[in-house]
Amino acid sequence: MALRDLLIGLALVWLIAKVAGEAMERTGQTAVLGELLAGVAIGPGVLGLVHDSHGLHVLAELGVLILLFEVGLESNLGDLLRAGLQATLVAIAGVVVPFVAGYGFMSALGYPPLVAVFIGATMTATSVGVTARVLTDLGRLQDRASRVILGAAVVDDILGLVILAVVTGIATTGGVSLASAALLSVKAVGFLALAIAVGVWLAPVLIRWAGGMRARGTLIVYSLVFAVGLAAVSDMMGLATIVGAFAAGLVLATTERREHIERQIKPVADLLVPVFFVTVGMKVQPALLNPFAEHAYFGLTLALTGLAVVSKLVAGLTVYQRGVRRWAVGVGMVPRGEVGLIFAGAGLAVGVIAEDLYSALVAVVMLTTFVAPPWLKALWRADATARPAPAADPPPSG
Amino acid sequence: MALRDLLIGLALVWLIAKVAGEAMERTGQTAVLGELLAGVAIGPGVLGLVHDSHGLHVLAELGVLILLFEVGLESNLGDLLRAGLQATLVAIAGVVVPFVAGYGFMSALGYPPLVAVFIGATMTATSVGVTARVLTDLGRLQDRASRVILGAAVVDDILGLVILAVVTGIATTGGVSLASAALLSVKAVGFLALAIAVGVWLAPVLIRWAGGMRARGTLIVYSLVFAVGLAAVSDMMGLATIVGAFAAGLVLATTERREHIERQIKPVADLLVPVFFVTVGMKVQPALLNPFAEHAYFGLTLALTGLAVVSKLVAGLTVYQRGVRRWAVGVGMVPRGEVGLIFAGAGLAVGVIAEDLYSALVAVVMLTTFVAPPWLKALWRADATARPAPAADPPPSG
Repeated sequence: MALRDLLIGLALVWLIAKVAGEAMERTGQTAVLGELLAGVAIGPGVLGLVHDSHGLHVLAELGVLILLFEVGLESNLGDLLRAGLQATLVAIAGVVVPFVAGYGFMSALGYPPLVAVFIGATMTATSVGVTARVLTDLGRLQDRASRVILGAAVVDDILGLVILAVVTGIATTGGVSLASAALLSVKAVGFLALAIAVGVWLAPVLIRWAGGMRARGTLIVYSLVFAVGLAAVSDMMGLATIVGAFAAGLVLATTERREHIERQIKPVADLLVPVFFVTVGMKVQPALLNPFAEHAYFGLTLALTGLAVVSKLVAGLTVYQRGVRRWAVGVGMVPRGEVGLIFAGAGLAVGVIAEDLYSALVAVVMLTTFVAPPWLKALWRADATARPAPAADPPPSG
Repeated sequence: MALRDLLIGLALVWLIAKVAGEAMERTGQTAVLGELLAGVAIGPGVLGLVHDSHGLHVLAELGVLILLFEVGLESNLGDLLRAGLQATLVAIAGVVVPFVAGYGFMSALGYPPLVAVFIGATMTATSVGVTARVLTDLGRLQDRASRVILGAAVVDDILGLVILAVVTGIATTGGVSLASAALLSVKAVGFLALAIAVGVWLAPVLIRWAGGMRARGTLIVYSLVFAVGLAAVSDMMGLATIVGAFAAGLVLATTERREHIERQIKPVADLLVPVFFVTVGMKVQPALLNPFAEHAYFGLTLALTGLAVVSKLVAGLTVYQRGVRRWAVGVGMVPRGEVGLIFAGAGLAVGVIAEDLYSALVAVVMLTTFVAPPWLKALWRADATARPAPAADPPPSG
């Protein structure tokens, strides 16, 4: 019975994801926007056709891992390291500016400092899934702006560790141990550097070993053992699982079987990635955005959303490298994700953040997610129009 | 936390499945035997490295669906229909002989008739997953024996509906409504015929439609919407989900995009199918086979396993078509699966079957699963030796 529900849910999710994605592509948008909206439509908040079961959740989580693994496979480790300083600067600005904006705004409204701290923290964390998907759909992963965005997303996740330690400290003990937060981030950076260094050295050996196997499908299975294993280790280090999957992709991209792995992972991604975006859409409760509902923080939601967008755009202005689309970097960092909600959730758990305010924050996170895909698409289209030939595929120097 | 456990479990399952599968292939066995044994080793009964979580269960269920979908894609509907009468005869014999054997044996031991009925029913249902996988691994899906086995498995599932209605009737009301059981099977046959007829007529239209889509991955997603949807409908009709997935594969095999779909489904199958076989192995409790344990039905387990094997071999002897390996047909039908356990479970639920006896039946089902892979492999190898050239790939007429 549970299996049947999952099969029906999966068939519906796939069908509507493809139909809505196709409709969006034909009207000049990206498929991911269609998948997000399709999720809103079939989710419990609107039609209630599909419920977010544990089975769908498992497939969605694997989907976003495989998306970031694929993005890693299509990225170049050297390019990413060269973008490192720029990406770090963008990430730091992308944490500081939204935090100050959120904290200052809430303080100005007369909220107590503790509430303002949690709201500020919620505004900081970028969710790279949506942007990575849009860049993949647009075929723009090789752009220099994409490297800065991806690099900044990794740094952002490490900064998120520090913020989580700080807000959890405030929430539980009322104090902050900056030393332990710093230690955490040093461990995280060390782990990433080590994983990539050892991986780059070990991967060719493993790939050659897998090549000598007789059983079918050895290469793709070993590649995903690596990706899923590194994701689990990331999680143990307190980092997001997608950071590990991205690192695994980066490492395997340095091997001679890169294209082979890419070709084999593609149909797997085609099946699982849309499940992630549809279930993200399913979590949206449109009722939260109803301005006529009781206790609706409608004005506050819109104001915080505006701040969330503007503050990441400002962070994008710290781009100093020539030839990097700074607006694209800013817009690419606009989508917030569940990490921000974890910060807010810590506040909810200790009673600093009220239920209504938490709901408003959920709405802010959701709205930022829907802003990025059409905006990024428009930016690259405007660019293609400004520089006529070749319109579909401008030179990588752009 | 649950996600991390799933990722670690998945990495372990994939890794050990590949290592054990490779070891088996190198010693002349099939990879699936390695995956089953790997599952026993890491399962709760032995090392306890991996627990059968809900997440693994979901991936395993999708894995066996995709396996049968892939087998359907590589089969020929016309060939299967031409094998229809032969397959039906084999399926009927494969239900009647094991039932009579189980019933007679238990009656002879002095068990009451009701107990004997449930044991007999448990002995009937073939589980086609293991055999389908072995045939795929050996590259023997085009053999005439394979067509008979696959056709018989479908008929067997329909007969299973009748048996389920009968034993459930006995278990709940003490009586049997043969009319309603017959109606059920007529509905099942009608559904299958309709699904295939409509599918063959509709599939080319859908495939052409999918071909006109711009979004990435449309063909593979629509193909699996069809497979998963038909699996869900099968389940609603009281049939196994794999029957629907197999039918979907058969239908899509008649379209011009067959090879394209096959190529795209392959990496997905490579990832998910081993999860199914490893989790099957994980369900084995070797303690059930300990002859020195208290209340061990050790002798009974071995005797019933012997009967289970021999009775399906006898069913294989009803092969009258020339050029069909009749021993292969019999051995291919030896593995029993969860359907048999559902029958026994109905007896357990009403107190006809005692706990200990139920455990013995679980052990019988498991033992039959492990017998088939090496035996089938040996049969085809002996055959290749008897008819020397070309040893690796005898002509399809064989």
